[in-house]
Amino acid sequence: MERPDCIALFTDFGWNGPYVGQLHAALLGAGRPVIDLQHDAPAFAPRAAAYLLAALADELPPATLFLAVVDPGVGGARRPLLLRTGRGWLVGPDNGLLAVAARRQGIVAAWEVAWRPPRLSASFHGRDLFAPVCVALCRGEPPPGVALAPVTLTGWDWPEELAEVIYFDDYGNAYSGVRASGLARTMRVRVGGRLLEYARTFAEVAPGVAFWYENSCGLLEVAVNQGSARRQLDLRAGVPVELVGG
Amino acid sequence: MERPDCIALFTDFGWNGPYVGQLHAALLGAGRPVIDLQHDAPAFAPRAAAYLLAALADELPPATLFLAVVDPGVGGARRPLLLRTGRGWLVGPDNGLLAVAARRQGIVAAWEVAWRPPRLSASFHGRDLFAPVCVALCRGEPPPGVALAPVTLTGWDWPEELAEVIYFDDYGNAYSGVRASGLARTMRVRVGGRLLEYARTFAEVAPGVAFWYENSCGLLEVAVNQGSARRQLDLRAGVPVELVGG
Amino acid sequence: MERPDCIALFTDFGWNGPYVGQLHAALLGAGRPVIDLQHDAPAFAPRAAAYLLAALADELPPATLFLAVVDPGVGGARRPLLLRTGRGWLVGPDNGLLAVAARRQGIVAAWEVAWRPPRLSASFHGRDLFAPVCVALCRGEPPPGVALAPVTLTGWDWPEELAEVIYFDDYGNAYSGVRASGLARTMRVRVGGRLLEYARTFAEVAPGVAFWYENSCGLLEVAVNQGSARRQLDLRAGVPVELVGG
Repeated sequence: MERPDCIALFTDFGWNGPYVGQLHAALLGAGRPVIDLQHDAPAFAPRAAAYLLAALADELPPATLFLAVVDPGVGGARRPLLLRTGRGWLVGPDNGLLAVAARRQGIVAAWEVAWRPPRLSASFHGRDLFAPVCVALCRGEPPPGVALAPVTLTGWDWPEELAEVIYFDDYGNAYSGVRASGLARTMRVRVGGRLLEYARTFAEVAPGVAFWYENSCGLLEVAVNQGSARRQLDLRAGVPVELVGG
Repeated sequence: MERPDCIALFTDFGWNGPYVGQLHAALLGAGRPVIDLQHDAPAFAPRAAAYLLAALADELPPATLFLAVVDPGVGGARRPLLLRTGRGWLVGPDNGLLAVAARRQGIVAAWEVAWRPPRLSASFHGRDLFAPVCVALCRGEPPPGVALAPVTLTGWDWPEELAEVIYFDDYGNAYSGVRASGLARTMRVRVGGRLLEYARTFAEVAPGVAFWYENSCGLLEVAVNQGSARRQLDLRAGVPVELVGG
Repeated sequence: MERPDCIALFTDFGWNGPYVGQLHAALLGAGRPVIDLQHDAPAFAPRAAAYLLAALADELPPATLFLAVVDPGVGGARRPLLLRTGRGWLVGPDNGLLAVAARRQGIVAAWEVAWRPPRLSASFHGRDLFAPVCVALCRGEPPPGVALAPVTLTGWDWPEELAEVIYFDDYGNAYSGVRASGLARTMRVRVGGRLLEYARTFAEVAPGVAFWYENSCGLLEVAVNQGSARRQLDLRAGVPVELVGG
């Protein structure tokens, strides 16, 4: 059986606290490089996070194992998943977080993880359950699981693109869940009551001007040159992003 | 002589600034994986940090070398320590930071590090002194030291549990220095003028309700579902956490 | 041809967002340890950042490859650089960021990178252009480039020391761009309308007292014991730091 070349972490834990460190410690046995892809994923928002993860996953090498944890239902009944796709692997909770990336990459097989660790904390399945699953997979000893039909995955029926604000970076740039590569540059974007033109990059507009562009993850992003789109357009996560004309 | 399998960092440096990066650079020669366990340990508070470190250390693999730096006395007379325990190694200042973990793990031997680097900055012994000690240890060439009786270590006489708030995570959850595993779930916790019931996890209480639970480090933690215990109960580090009845 | 032993990252990306993670992913193929030296370098300020990078670079092992990105001109006409120095390598934009470190280390050769990736985003040359250059270099296959005379580098004519505030750490300590090792400890520092005495370390002055000292990067730093120099002296980046008498 093929094995992952590296592990990429995508969580909403934040860098503070012991959480990311404990995750790394739990992954030591995998013997693979571990990339901290992002630890400020949309918090408690698996749907928004799913579109961000899907965009980021496209950029990483094949044979990457994504360990993704945005898991407000931790400790409840949601299923732990292990997904094999045409590009790599995805491990995390069945709340939609993995579904968009898996669908785009082409799902090869899906399992509900049946294995449970000797000690499972109520609040940290990333460390106690998902990380050991990753370690086992990297050792060529995948944990026991129950095969699932992809159509039963939460989020399998979500739209191809999510036409709303899904994430703000620290500059106040607003990511949407819409891939920008196929969009005509003549289109405009309606968001927060404003209608914005396209620009290729920040330097193409005057300071203080809002615009839309294709960001480095391939997503439609709303930004302000030398300013914060979040503040200037008074945006919040979930605000609709509408494509107009062109 | 046995050697460490990995190095775990526990500091109050924060992620910003060049400090964590310089520590990693100084550890390159160890040829071991380095885990950033936590870099927002209780700042300038070795006593509170000692109970957090002890809880976290329990979770890591044996043969881990902990490099711990919460060191308000840097540049002063406090002794640099190298401790061998029943589980691994601890390196850091003699201000109590290592004492609780060492006592719990069972101390095998303790040394005051006698070696000094050619260049020792006044403010960054983590990089200049403690990191090279770790590198030497990983190479099987422990630095010269003077054997110490454990009873002479600062903090050796500190209580088994520290019944106060020692740390807040970014969600505003309040960690105490009390291990929760042996506590009856019928007990209540008095903190900040409030008396709190136990819950196994956040989802078991209504939004806005404060409760206590065993967190993922095994410590008694005070939390609010979908809220901040820190703000809602007006807590500060050092506030007493009292166990009641049960 | 010699190859780098490790890669050190120096950027203004911040730890949040996917940017640092994507950089690490792009460097996987280098097969070298990657140190996150600092990700809160002076933002959009290549001149200030250049003096900080030069100070930090002195501390790292020889044969380090620095990948430095403070690049407000990304997407514009500035040249991508690969520099070989007496100590190691520097890769980044030609906006002065690399010039001070290169000059101090002694430049051996300089190239404008002529290679371009198949896909070059408008906003993230760190990932798309500079990281692949580093990977190629580590594999012993340096990318095609055009040799440059060092004197043509932006920043080559900048002063030896930058006598102003270049960076604040999270404690509010103010770094200057002046190396402190050669300065008489009898000198005083005029900054923000105040005249400050030297102290070897924080503990040598009373709480709340401002002073100057040689920080752990070797730079003249203005600090307040148990306080924030930034707030107490009302400092901003760019404020002059003047050496007086002594």
